Amino acid sequence: MTIKIGVLGATGYTGAELLRLLKNHDEVEISWLTSEKFSNTKISDVFQHLNGFLDIECKSVRKAYELQNVDLVFSCLPHAASMHFVKKMLDTGARVIDFSSDFRFSDVKIYEKWFKSKHRYKNYLKNAVYGLPEINKEAIVDAELVANPGCYATSVILGLAPMVKAGLLIPDSIIADIKSGLSGGGRAPNLGQHFSEANESIKIASSGQSQKPEIEQIFSEIGDTNYRITFIPHLVPLDRGILATVYARLKKKVPTNKACRIYEKFYKDNKFIRMFQKDNLPSTKSVRYSNMCDIGIGFQDDVFVSVISIDNLGKGASGQAIQNMNIMFNFPETQGLMSTAIYP
Amino acid sequence: MTIKIGVLGATGYTGAELLRLLKNHDEVEISWLTSEKFSNTKISDVFQHLNGFLDIECKSVRKAYELQNVDLVFSCLPHAASMHFVKKMLDTGARVIDFSSDFRFSDVKIYEKWFKSKHRYKNYLKNAVYGLPEINKEAIVDAELVANPGCYATSVILGLAPMVKAGLLIPDSIIADIKSGLSGGGRAPNLGQHFSEANESIKIASSGQSQKPEIEQIFSEIGDTNYRITFIPHLVPLDRGILATVYARLKKKVPTNKACRIYEKFYKDNKFIRMFQKDNLPSTKSVRYSNMCDIGIGFQDDVFVSVISIDNLGKGASGQAIQNMNIMFNFPETQGLMSTAIYP
Amino acid sequence: MTIKIGVLGATGYTGAELLRLLKNHDEVEISWLTSEKFSNTKISDVFQHLNGFLDIECKSVRKAYELQNVDLVFSCLPHAASMHFVKKMLDTGARVIDFSSDFRFSDVKIYEKWFKSKHRYKNYLKNAVYGLPEINKEAIVDAELVANPGCYATSVILGLAPMVKAGLLIPDSIIADIKSGLSGGGRAPNLGQHFSEANESIKIASSGQSQKPEIEQIFSEIGDTNYRITFIPHLVPLDRGILATVYARLKKKVPTNKACRIYEKFYKDNKFIRMFQKDNLPSTKSVRYSNMCDIGIGFQDDVFVSVISIDNLGKGASGQAIQNMNIMFNFPETQGLMSTAIYP
Amino acid sequence: MTIKIGVLGATGYTGAELLRLLKNHDEVEISWLTSEKFSNTKISDVFQHLNGFLDIECKSVRKAYELQNVDLVFSCLPHAASMHFVKKMLDTGARVIDFSSDFRFSDVKIYEKWFKSKHRYKNYLKNAVYGLPEINKEAIVDAELVANPGCYATSVILGLAPMVKAGLLIPDSIIADIKSGLSGGGRAPNLGQHFSEANESIKIASSGQSQKPEIEQIFSEIGDTNYRITFIPHLVPLDRGILATVYARLKKKVPTNKACRIYEKFYKDNKFIRMFQKDNLPSTKSVRYSNMCDIGIGFQDDVFVSVISIDNLGKGASGQAIQNMNIMFNFPETQGLMSTAIYP
Repeated sequence: MTIKIGVLGATGYTGAELLRLLKNHDEVEISWLTSEKFSNTKISDVFQHLNGFLDIECKSVRKAYELQNVDLVFSCLPHAASMHFVKKMLDTGARVIDFSSDFRFSDVKIYEKWFKSKHRYKNYLKNAVYGLPEINKEAIVDAELVANPGCYATSVILGLAPMVKAGLLIPDSIIADIKSGLSGGGRAPNLGQHFSEANESIKIASSGQSQKPEIEQIFSEIGDTNYRITFIPHLVPLDRGILATVYARLKKKVPTNKACRIYEKFYKDNKFIRMFQKDNLPSTKSVRYSNMCDIGIGFQDDVFVSVISIDNLGKGASGQAIQNMNIMFNFPETQGLMSTAIYP
Repeated sequence: MTIKIGVLGATGYTGAELLRLLKNHDEVEISWLTSEKFSNTKISDVFQHLNGFLDIECKSVRKAYELQNVDLVFSCLPHAASMHFVKKMLDTGARVIDFSSDFRFSDVKIYEKWFKSKHRYKNYLKNAVYGLPEINKEAIVDAELVANPGCYATSVILGLAPMVKAGLLIPDSIIADIKSGLSGGGRAPNLGQHFSEANESIKIASSGQSQKPEIEQIFSEIGDTNYRITFIPHLVPLDRGILATVYARLKKKVPTNKACRIYEKFYKDNKFIRMFQKDNLPSTKSVRYSNMCDIGIGFQDDVFVSVISIDNLGKGASGQAIQNMNIMFNFPETQGLMSTAIYP
Repeated sequence: MTIKIGVLGATGYTGAELLRLLKNHDEVEISWLTSEKFSNTKISDVFQHLNGFLDIECKSVRKAYELQNVDLVFSCLPHAASMHFVKKMLDTGARVIDFSSDFRFSDVKIYEKWFKSKHRYKNYLKNAVYGLPEINKEAIVDAELVANPGCYATSVILGLAPMVKAGLLIPDSIIADIKSGLSGGGRAPNLGQHFSEANESIKIASSGQSQKPEIEQIFSEIGDTNYRITFIPHLVPLDRGILATVYARLKKKVPTNKACRIYEKFYKDNKFIRMFQKDNLPSTKSVRYSNMCDIGIGFQDDVFVSVISIDNLGKGASGQAIQNMNIMFNFPETQGLMSTAIYP
Repeated sequence: MTIKIGVLGATGYTGAELLRLLKNHDEVEISWLTSEKFSNTKISDVFQHLNGFLDIECKSVRKAYELQNVDLVFSCLPHAASMHFVKKMLDTGARVIDFSSDFRFSDVKIYEKWFKSKHRYKNYLKNAVYGLPEINKEAIVDAELVANPGCYATSVILGLAPMVKAGLLIPDSIIADIKSGLSGGGRAPNLGQHFSEANESIKIASSGQSQKPEIEQIFSEIGDTNYRITFIPHLVPLDRGILATVYARLKKKVPTNKACRIYEKFYKDNKFIRMFQKDNLPSTKSVRYSNMCDIGIGFQDDVFVSVISIDNLGKGASGQAIQNMNIMFNFPETQGLMSTAIYP
C-alpha cells in the first residue's frame, strides 16, 4: 500500500529532513509541498542537495486545501500559524502530523499562557495525540491528529520516563540541562544564528522555553501526580544533535542495577532506544542523522543522572514524525528509519 | 543474489562509512571484518553508532586469509601494508577493491618514486583496474582487482575529464587547488588533526601529494598525451567534503555553452554527476554523505574553471567502492547509493 | 621593578597562553622555559605564532633547577609530575604558581582518593594558597606557593560564592553542569580530541572530575559547613570557553533584586567580574581570550540559577595565574590583563 | 601626543576589531562612534564583550559631521554609502581612513564597472592613497584620505609583490585562490552566513569579486605593465583568517633561494611580514587576531607558488587601518599592534 503525502512548510530544516526520509521510504508518494517564501519554485532549487532526487514545485500554503487530497499531511509550519492549516487539512479527511506546539497541550490555558495568544481551535486539543511512540503508541494508531513532540521534550521525557512511571523520583526535583545544535532554530536568518555570532560560543537558548510545560504535562500524566521541572536549553556550535543531562532526586535509594532493569523493561520493544553501560556514555555524534535515542544512566552521590542524546531533526522532529506515520498506517515501525547514524 | 563480503581494516573512517553503506545494500552479507588495534572487539564497541546494527567481532588481519572465503574483499588498509593482504585475498579466489594507492599506478617507477619504497607485487599492476566508473566502467565489470581512486584525484579527474578527452586544454596548464575536510586524514590521533590545532584554521595538507601523479596518469591516458599538473591540497575545519577548484588554459577559445554540452554528453548516463548552472555553484554541504559529484564550470577571462564538490568518504572513497562493487557484480550501479545528501 | 620568570612545561596550551600574556606585561622578563618533548627547540618553532616575538630555546625540565634563579616560576606540568619540580623550585628561593591539582587540596586524603596515588610533599599543602583572587586575595599577597584553581572550579566557585558566603543555599542541593571547549584537554594527541571525533559532537568529559572535591572544599570553607555538589563536565566543539550553569535550592525565598545586591557587594572591587542583567545572558564568546568572568543570575520557579562564562585558558588558567602574580608582586591587579575579549 | 578619533559604522565586525585595537593603543582617544541600527545605544550593549571597557553611546551617522571635530575618522561604512560621509569628514578638516572600496581605484571607470553605479566624488580619487604600508608607506605619511585595502587584495598583493616588482612573472599567468573565514561577510544576517548553511561546508564566495581589479591595479603599478589575474574567493567555516594560494609562471627559471632573497630584501624593514621556510607552511591560526602576514614560497615543477595567511579583520582590515594611522600620525608603525597571535 502506498499512501499520498502532503507537506506544509517544506523549505525549513525539518522539511528538508522529512523529505529525505520520505524519499527513503518505500510506501509513500509525495503529492505536494508548500512554501510561502519559495512558492512556484522547485524544491531542488531551494535545496541543491535534492537536485535529481525531488524536483517538484512548491505551492503557496493558501492553496494547500485546494490541492490533491492526500492521506497524510505533515505540517512543518511555525507555532500559531500551523493550527489554521491543520484544521483545514483535517476537514479534507486527511490525517495530520503537526510539528508545531499548537496541539501539544491538553490544557488550553497552558498553551495560552506560554504563547501569549488565544488558541482558535481548542476543541481539537482533546483528540490530538501526543506523538511520542515510546509512551503513547496505542493512541497514535488511530489518531487523526498527532502533535509531534518538541525536540528538547523528546530527549528529557525519554530520559526519565521509566523512573517517572515507576514513581521513584521526587516530582519537583528534576533539572533538565539541554545542549543543542543550532539547526533547531530554523532556517530564517537572524543574528543569534549568524555564523560568526554562534560559532565558537556557548550560550543560553532564547527559544524553546515552552517545552518546559510540555514535559511537565507528560510527566504528570505518566507519573500520575504533578511534576514541576527546572529546564534550561543551551546552544552549542554544531548543526545537529541534542545532549540532555537530567538530574533528579529519588524518594528512596535505588541500586544502579535495579534502575537499569527498570529502563530495559520499559523500553524492551523499542528499537530506537539504546541503553548505555557505565563506561560508554552517549554522544550526539553516535546518533546523528538517525532516529536513535541513546540513554546512559547512573548516580553521583545521591543524585540520579540520565544522559540522553538524539538528533534534533531526527528523533527530535522528522524521524519521529516518520515513526508516527508508520504506526498510524500500519507500516513496520522502523520502516525507512533503520539507516545507522553516520560517522564521522 | 547475495554476495559475501570481507573488510580488511574496518575500524578507520573509510571502514565506518563502508559498513554503513553495506548495511543499506540489499544484496550483500558481511562475513568478516579485520582490525589490528581492535581485534577481538565488537565493531559496535569501536563505533557506538553501529550498536544494534552491526555487532560482529573484528579479527586480526593476519588471520584474514584463514577466515571464511568471500566473494569480495574491501581493503581499507594503509598504503604499503595493503598490497600484501590484497595479494593473499586474490589467492583465495576473492575479488578485491583496494582503497590504498598500492595498485593505482600502471608504472611501478612512479609508485616507487612517490612512496619511496619497493613495490613487492608489481606484476599485479597491469591487471589492476583504476576504479573510477565514469571513466573506466567497462574494465571494472570483469576486474579481479580494482584500485579505488584517491579522494582528491576523484574530484580533479571528474572535473576536467570531458575537456581532457576533447583535447581542448593545454596539457601543462592545469592547476588543481583542493580544499578538504579532515576525516580524509584518518582516525589515528596526531597533532595535525588534534581538535584545537585544526579547528578555526586553514592550512596546507601534509599528505595526499601522491595523487598528483595519479591524476597525471589518468589525464595522460584519457587525453592521449603527457599531462603535468600543479596540485596543492589544503585542509579546512570540517569533517567531510572536498571542494576542488581547477584552473586550465584552452588551446583555443571555446564558448561556455559548447563546454557545457561537452560535459553533458560525456556524463549523460552517469547518475552521480550533477552539472550546475552558472548562478548555482557547488558546495560540499549539498553532497555530504552521498555519492554525488557536483560540477560547475565557467570562464574567468580566458581561464577555464571547474569547481567540483564531493564527499571525501562518499564518492571520494567508500561510496565509490560500493559503486565499483555494483558494477563488478552486475547490481544496478546506483543500488544502495541513492539516499540524498543530508541537509543541514 | 622587573621580575624574572621561569616557565615549567611551556609547550602546552596553558603555556602558550601564559607566554602571550607575559609578553603583554611590562614588568616581567622571561628567563627560561622548559619542555620535555621539545627540549633544545626554539619555542617559536613549536608555536609558529610566536615567531619573531619569543625565540628562546626550551630546556629539559630536569635541568630546570640548574637554570638561572628566578623570582617566580609558573608550573604548567601535569598533575603528579608537577609536585616534584614545584618543590625543587621553592628550594631555590623562587615563589611558585602551580597550574596542577597537586597543591589545591588542604586535606591530603582527598587528593589521594581522587588521584589514586600518594602525595609526596604533603607538608607543603598547609602553606599552599588556593589562588582564586576574588576569594583569597589577602592570602595570595605573601604566598610562596599558589595553587592555581581548576578551570571548571573557577567558574562554579565564582558563580555561587556570594550565595554560599551568605549562607542562603541548601548545602547539598547544588548541581553544576559544565560545558567546555576542547583546549582544556591539552595538546597531546588522543582519540577524544581527534578532530573528526570531537567536531560536531556533544559528549561527557572524561577528565576533570577531581574539580568536584575542589569546589566542595572551597564552598565548605566559605560557607563554614559541609557542601556536597553534583558535578558533570561536558565537551562541546570549540577551542576555548566554559559556560557553567549552576542550580541550587535556597533555604528560604530570596527576592531576585536582593540576590543581585549580594553579588554586587561581594564582587564590588573586582574588575574581572561582570554581572549581567536579566535579558542579557553570558556567552563564552564575550569573554574569549580575556580574564573576564561574566555572571548572570535568576530564578526558575524556586530554583536559583547562576550562569557563568569564562575563557578556560584565561580566567580559567593562565590569565588567573597572571592575576595571582600581580597580587604576589604588588603590581596593579589588572596589569597586562585589560585587553578586551575579541569578537568575533 | 593623543589624537581624537571618530568611527563611522562602528557596530559591524571591522568596527568591533577596530575598537579593540584602539583600546590597546596609548595615543588615541575615541571621541565618538556612529551606528544607524544602534543609534542612541551604548556600544557595550551592542557588544557585550566591551562591557566595562567602552561604554559610550553610538550616534546616528547623519549627525556625524555635527559631532566633535576629530583628528582622524575611520569609516567602516559599506561601499557606496561610505563616500558621502568620507567627503563630509574631510570637509571638517579630519583625515580619513576608509574601509570601503569607494576610494581604492584610481580609474573611476573600473569602480563604476564593478559596482554598477556612478561615483559621486571622483575628483577625490587622485588624492586618495592606497593604504598598504608595505608598498605605499611614503604616500601614506601625508595622506588626507587613505583607502584601506580589501582583505583578499592584501593577501594576494603581499604574496606576490616582490616578484611583480622584480618583473619575473608572466603578467597574465597569476591565479589567486582564496580561502576565507566568514566574518569578512559582515554582521547583517543573511542565508549564506546562517550557521547551519555555512557550517561544515566549503563554497564559492558570493562577494568580494571587485578585489580582482583592485589587485590588478596595484600589480600594474608595481610591475609597470598590465596585469590580469584569475581570482576566486572561497568561504570555509571559521570566524577569522584568510589563506591565499597564489600560482604564477615565471618568464624564466629562478632558483628558490634567489626568490627567497628577493622577498627578504623587499620586506626587510617590515615587522608584520614573516617569511616561512620550506617545511613550515603558513596557517591562519598562527596569525589570528594579529597584524602579522605569514608568507611561504616555493616551486612545484615550473609553477611558482606563494601561500599567504592573514587575519581578515587584522592585517586584512582593522589592524592594517591602525598601522596606517600610526604612519599618518608619526607613531611607531607597530604601536598597539604587537600582541602575538592567540593560540589555540
